[in-house]
Amino acid sequence: MKKAMGPQTVLYPMPAVLVGAQVQGKPNFMTAAWCGIAAATPPAISVAIRPARFTREGISANNTFSINIPSASMVEKVDYCGIYSGHKTDKSRIFQVEYGKLNTAPLIQECPVNLECSVIHSVDLGSHILFIGEIMETYIDSDCMTAERADPVKIDPLIYTTGVRQYQRLGEFVGKAWEIGKKK
Amino acid sequence: MKKAMGPQTVLYPMPAVLVGAQVQGKPNFMTAAWCGIAAATPPAISVAIRPARFTREGISANNTFSINIPSASMVEKVDYCGIYSGHKTDKSRIFQVEYGKLNTAPLIQECPVNLECSVIHSVDLGSHILFIGEIMETYIDSDCMTAERADPVKIDPLIYTTGVRQYQRLGEFVGKAWEIGKKK
Repeated sequence: MKKAMGPQTVLYPMPAVLVGAQVQGKPNFMTAAWCGIAAATPPAISVAIRPARFTREGISANNTFSINIPSASMVEKVDYCGIYSGHKTDKSRIFQVEYGKLNTAPLIQECPVNLECSVIHSVDLGSHILFIGEIMETYIDSDCMTAERADPVKIDPLIYTTGVRQYQRLGEFVGKAWEIGKKK
Repeated sequence: MKKAMGPQTVLYPMPAVLVGAQVQGKPNFMTAAWCGIAAATPPAISVAIRPARFTREGISANNTFSINIPSASMVEKVDYCGIYSGHKTDKSRIFQVEYGKLNTAPLIQECPVNLECSVIHSVDLGSHILFIGEIMETYIDSDCMTAERADPVKIDPLIYTTGVRQYQRLGEFVGKAWEIGKKK
């Protein structure tokens, strides 16, 4: 039996990514779970950020940001970047940082995947601004590839599970997409 | 060592949800992985849909849609709804359908979680329209709750893993969020 629970921001799974921005001349990173792919052509990604966030300041100033996909082994640093604000805590030296094409989208070296993004839309939704970035470049650790493609087993990404507020790993294989649903 | 792979729509994890819309007087459902929470107040969710999709027609006509979170046991039906288009295949009788407050956002009874959404923004991004819906109501199966809250273990949601194109379950616990990263 279904119960109406009132409007809730429930979705399973959510990613646990690190959003990078250059703020007041330094790299800063915040953790975000409210992130999704938005389009194929141009390749685009969205991330929801509260206006008061330190990271938001850098994104608005430069119109660039990065999405860094961490490995499960990085969980302490990922959570740290979600707990402590760049307004009070200097997060510029937690990670080894590099820059790609955009110069103002700091990329976390130890994250196996980095997306370098240029803002193409920002939608003011009240509590959050939804930044939509065109993915200008994708960097993948060569140790996390198999046959020249990203290998999710090697990447070992973090899942954020809402409600119970915990991080989990990718689990058991259930089926091949575009195959298991084929009509007989 | 990092390799620049060109712009790619890479994100781990992605959900595998069923997007519901009322199209030409009937419920229709498509599978989507490009979906993310967009705001807290008002509670909002985004989903990227190609303009030519049958589901898009219904969303544009009614300004409503549903996001239905399936259990892993529903994987065949989930994949089916991603393979076959409503333009050619009547998907109105695959699931038991109910309606909530909005009348034109069909809810899949057997999905443990349903979000009933009203479109507040739609952003034309080229290949996809990003529909942003205010979450008007959330329905959760009482069998999938523990202490009056959604229980992800009972929900057993599907993860879509891009690149390798497969469905997976939630995996191993890694850490408590807002705890494991606390400074000592």
